[in-house]
Amino acid sequence: MNAIARLVRPRSVAVIGASADPDKTSGRPVAFLQKHGFSGTIYPVNPKVKRIGELTCYPDVGALPAVPDVGIVLLGAERAHLAVRELSKRGAAAAIVLASGYTETGEEGALRQRQLLEAAGSMRILGPNTIGLVNLTDNIVLSASGALAMDHFPAGPIGLVSQSGGILGALLSRAAARGIGLSKLVSTSNEADLELSDFIEFLAADEATKVIALYVEAIRHPVRFREAVRKARLAGKAVVAFKIGRSEAGAKAAVSHTGALAGSDRMYDALFRQLGVIRAKTFEDLLDIPAALAAGRKLCGKRVAILTSTGGAGTIVSDSLGVAGFETPTPDAETAARLALLQSGSHANLDRNPVDLTLAGLHPDILRGAIRALLASPSYNALVIIAGSSAVGSPALLADAVRDCLPDSDKPVIAYVSPYAPDVGAVLTARGVPAYTSAESCTSAFAGLLLAAQCSQREVALSVERQVDISEFSTGSLDEAQAKALFTRFGIRAVAERIVETSAEAESAAHGLGEKVVLKVLSGEITHKSDVGGVAINLTPDTIGGRLITMANDVEKATGERPQRFLVQEMVAGGTELILGMHRDALGTAILLGMGGVTAELFKDTTMRLLPPQGGLSRDDALSMLHDLITWPLLDGFRGRPKADVEALVSTIVAFSLMAAQLGERLIEAEINPVFVLPAGQGVRAADGVVVLGAAAG
Amino acid sequence: MNAIARLVRPRSVAVIGASADPDKTSGRPVAFLQKHGFSGTIYPVNPKVKRIGELTCYPDVGALPAVPDVGIVLLGAERAHLAVRELSKRGAAAAIVLASGYTETGEEGALRQRQLLEAAGSMRILGPNTIGLVNLTDNIVLSASGALAMDHFPAGPIGLVSQSGGILGALLSRAAARGIGLSKLVSTSNEADLELSDFIEFLAADEATKVIALYVEAIRHPVRFREAVRKARLAGKAVVAFKIGRSEAGAKAAVSHTGALAGSDRMYDALFRQLGVIRAKTFEDLLDIPAALAAGRKLCGKRVAILTSTGGAGTIVSDSLGVAGFETPTPDAETAARLALLQSGSHANLDRNPVDLTLAGLHPDILRGAIRALLASPSYNALVIIAGSSAVGSPALLADAVRDCLPDSDKPVIAYVSPYAPDVGAVLTARGVPAYTSAESCTSAFAGLLLAAQCSQREVALSVERQVDISEFSTGSLDEAQAKALFTRFGIRAVAERIVETSAEAESAAHGLGEKVVLKVLSGEITHKSDVGGVAINLTPDTIGGRLITMANDVEKATGERPQRFLVQEMVAGGTELILGMHRDALGTAILLGMGGVTAELFKDTTMRLLPPQGGLSRDDALSMLHDLITWPLLDGFRGRPKADVEALVSTIVAFSLMAAQLGERLIEAEINPVFVLPAGQGVRAADGVVVLGAAAG
Repeated sequence: MNAIARLVRPRSVAVIGASADPDKTSGRPVAFLQKHGFSGTIYPVNPKVKRIGELTCYPDVGALPAVPDVGIVLLGAERAHLAVRELSKRGAAAAIVLASGYTETGEEGALRQRQLLEAAGSMRILGPNTIGLVNLTDNIVLSASGALAMDHFPAGPIGLVSQSGGILGALLSRAAARGIGLSKLVSTSNEADLELSDFIEFLAADEATKVIALYVEAIRHPVRFREAVRKARLAGKAVVAFKIGRSEAGAKAAVSHTGALAGSDRMYDALFRQLGVIRAKTFEDLLDIPAALAAGRKLCGKRVAILTSTGGAGTIVSDSLGVAGFETPTPDAETAARLALLQSGSHANLDRNPVDLTLAGLHPDILRGAIRALLASPSYNALVIIAGSSAVGSPALLADAVRDCLPDSDKPVIAYVSPYAPDVGAVLTARGVPAYTSAESCTSAFAGLLLAAQCSQREVALSVERQVDISEFSTGSLDEAQAKALFTRFGIRAVAERIVETSAEAESAAHGLGEKVVLKVLSGEITHKSDVGGVAINLTPDTIGGRLITMANDVEKATGERPQRFLVQEMVAGGTELILGMHRDALGTAILLGMGGVTAELFKDTTMRLLPPQGGLSRDDALSMLHDLITWPLLDGFRGRPKADVEALVSTIVAFSLMAAQLGERLIEAEINPVFVLPAGQGVRAADGVVVLGAAAG
Repeated sequence: MNAIARLVRPRSVAVIGASADPDKTSGRPVAFLQKHGFSGTIYPVNPKVKRIGELTCYPDVGALPAVPDVGIVLLGAERAHLAVRELSKRGAAAAIVLASGYTETGEEGALRQRQLLEAAGSMRILGPNTIGLVNLTDNIVLSASGALAMDHFPAGPIGLVSQSGGILGALLSRAAARGIGLSKLVSTSNEADLELSDFIEFLAADEATKVIALYVEAIRHPVRFREAVRKARLAGKAVVAFKIGRSEAGAKAAVSHTGALAGSDRMYDALFRQLGVIRAKTFEDLLDIPAALAAGRKLCGKRVAILTSTGGAGTIVSDSLGVAGFETPTPDAETAARLALLQSGSHANLDRNPVDLTLAGLHPDILRGAIRALLASPSYNALVIIAGSSAVGSPALLADAVRDCLPDSDKPVIAYVSPYAPDVGAVLTARGVPAYTSAESCTSAFAGLLLAAQCSQREVALSVERQVDISEFSTGSLDEAQAKALFTRFGIRAVAERIVETSAEAESAAHGLGEKVVLKVLSGEITHKSDVGGVAINLTPDTIGGRLITMANDVEKATGERPQRFLVQEMVAGGTELILGMHRDALGTAILLGMGGVTAELFKDTTMRLLPPQGGLSRDDALSMLHDLITWPLLDGFRGRPKADVEALVSTIVAFSLMAAQLGERLIEAEINPVFVLPAGQGVRAADGVVVLGAAAG
């Protein structure tokens, strides 16, 4: 049994600093363990106390009669490391350090945290600044938090790991009130040692866990995170993550809370998407989506039946589903006929969706008949049942009817509870029909189910097949010609161009480069060529010579230095302009693709993909980036435009990603802007670019 | 006292079809009235029953000893009209008809509804198919719905009108559970007679009502709605509306539910915005926003302080606020100093926001001190207080502290309750601190408060100053030249152009129209000129003659008819392309402005404004439309572009709207596409247009 398994399912627990008063914070761990019937051994440790209830209290860890699996350290930050050192010496698997006053408080605290880690040696640490963990499967509470003081925990298949401790009580009490069962609940907080990925990996192998839910402030070890998620997904477990920091305000609050350096929110989006992690958009989603996944049913399409006995609520759900792209088609003829057979009244209109049973829906046989008919219908992939005011009086009626019908179908069934009736929702959820009180939650649940069904492990990376030799490139900021030479080395086609120094050379170069050419000043120092008068387009061999002189004068005026070198380039016509670049932060390196041009820029029409640890992007990845762009139709024959050379563009994106993968940290900046995509068959041209190269390692 | 006032506050109520069994639907109205202590007279009417409890039961309405203010008609659709006729004959103010089986079921039902209305004569009808109404101010329940069976209604300042009956029970029970007090609750449902606007108008004058909340399926009488909302806003009451039908699925469900013809959702958006109606985006918002408004505090900016004793929840709220554009700045030096004085510990970091008091926040004096400091700080416009797990045990601690501090400031204070603790939220809300359980609700509440503070009555319409004579224009589809002639008549400048029939005429016309010209086929029948080869650009006097022959051939080949007439137009260069059009549906006539060009089209960058009943749009309206466009910067000097002639564009929009206002229903279609906006000082040119004119009235 490894250390984390011993931590989560300990046979013995030492409580260092335990108090005999169960109302004190330091009295809670022993009280919690006893209350929930911990079957292992509890060792209270406190030199000032002889007994706690029936239990012998020990003066120090050294005096314990046996090695504890876990030590809960209740001492303050100034003394916690002493207990940790003793626990490590005795051979405990892990210590849970609850004290605050570490990295989250600044420099001095960070020093204390390093001391703590040192004191732990090979023993694992959960925390510090953690609220602890709850193993609901086995009824073991390892915490001193009043927020976890509950008489009964609804156990179930959702494993929850949170980087915030404060949120754990909220999640537990909200889940319990809704009948949502959890398996394990862990707060990793400061993550001095054990962190998010450790517990994802544990839950991936934990039999009691079917769905993994994460409250994320910052992923400190992206490579380990990728690997842990991969294991969870291989085990067939969906991973749902709520990540704080969608806004700058939230990001700042999270950083000041954790002291961790976070990547940008868009990078998280890309990472989650690539790994098949379902992103919870709101805190509510972090329970709503796992609750739906926990029912273990698969959503195979977007067509939803809504069964109601009250008009308005069905409409609200239908409307929210519609906004998110779900469909609520009317029943097919056979289903409508089955529904019609159920009742004799003429008022109910059973050829509509929502299917409104009106008051007849209170009759169990009619209700069961309608549920069966809708679940059997090929028109629907899922069912929402509306619980109206009538359900408040008799919650079992609806719950029993649904339970009877569930085995007939493997389509997802969820419920929307219209009036305030928490008990109705809890009963339904506990019987396998996750219940929600907002239409948006129903929609989130279905969207999550759909993602879970669609998400395959996308990360099929191209490995870097060959090492490209770039030894002749200097370090620092490359000039435009060198940048494009580097791109070309990796297989990206650039516009044809010649470096010239004089008007005569420019004229002669222009002759070989097509009808119209572009003239640019060439310098590694000038980053914005247009701003200093260093770009001229639409030139011919006749006009380029004179224009070179003017440009030299303009640039000299603007920069104080007379430019010596120029580029004469073919002028690309008839293409669509894009931007291809690279972004790197704490989360990794991403390839960024954006539509060019001033209008697209206003709409920020861009997308990104993180590089996998092993190499570049696959062609599928690259193509999916194109499909992300709202302006994708511009490349796909929109309004009679010629179709663009998508094949060549995909190759260019892959090549760019392989360059970024091979060069790694050496590639400090890289961007092709613009890259022109020509009509199908004519390829792609890098027309300008920026590269900053760092020194080679070693 | 008018009929609606008598309906809402009756002194006597007849219940037609009353049963002596309070558990039967027909037994509920009398039971509800008695249970809540109705102080007026109740007249049960039922020929088969002698007494209901203490009350004499009458055989028919004619036998009643006095005229009832209201009759609740419990009979089915086949007999309800008989009771309605009797009530009208006796002089009742209104009948509440609960039966279904009217317009919502189809043609036959629609006929029944007309009979019902006829039977009512001058008496008002609420319904049919209604759930009735609840006057919470005076504890009067006029309903037979089990959904309204509650022992106690929390009375308060929110008046709620719903076009769906089914939703009423949900709203009432959800409000009650949260401590949100309502004044009146009305279900208008089929709106055979009394409708949304009648009750908005009533609530506008109702002293107990401070905020008006609407559940809208379809506004049947837009002009009356405008007028009613205007009265509410003049009375200083905010109007919040949740409108179903944001998606096609929802719209279909709502239409099939009401049988009412709805306008498009974007038209509702425009109407609500122009009237200063706050649109609830979700059903939850329909209680969340009014709850915030009911506290009667004004939000004057976007800077929010968050006070917490638990880290994670504060971060969640901060993040959601940030996404919506609110700011959570750190405390200013003076406020930070005040906060620091409150406690001696070194762990709390009081120079951050969320301000985390940690456990010290459980001390009432510290809590009060922190609330006072934050409310007094000029850095903040509002305060969110986080109730953590500790509040579950002692809800009064937080509620009392907040209550003590509220009188010191008029800034909005709301609460976020992190764990499941409905009682904590209800206590806070009842004490004037609206409490929410989701961060998105907090954000909605503040967004609603901000809108309420900003919304002024925007509808300052230009009246139609002069009637433009358009008698020479024929009816039907105008050709391009006529369409532009019509626009010109209303003061919109079009491109210079000549109508020609021969190549020679085209050459001579081209000489007077600038360097480059455009040639187009001219016909009222051809709607898509480009598709039939009927447009050529970049022509000169030298090339236009030959091109006209080719065009005539191409068009003849495509349409089977040889075109006789052509337009030669100046070619506009250097402008930005827009589309200006008109859209009309059940809700009214709207002016539509969109950015032109293929990229903007993909982003659907458009905006609309409804015409007020009295005339066209004001210059402010027109300018605000420009500011709505995401591509507005393209007109405003983005990236070194010349600033566009915004003044001229505003004049063009206003002129177009005045045209639509004057011509009214006669203008069946009208669009200028494209309209070019030239750089400042150079004006605007309508370059092409479509007009379909109906016959003049009379």
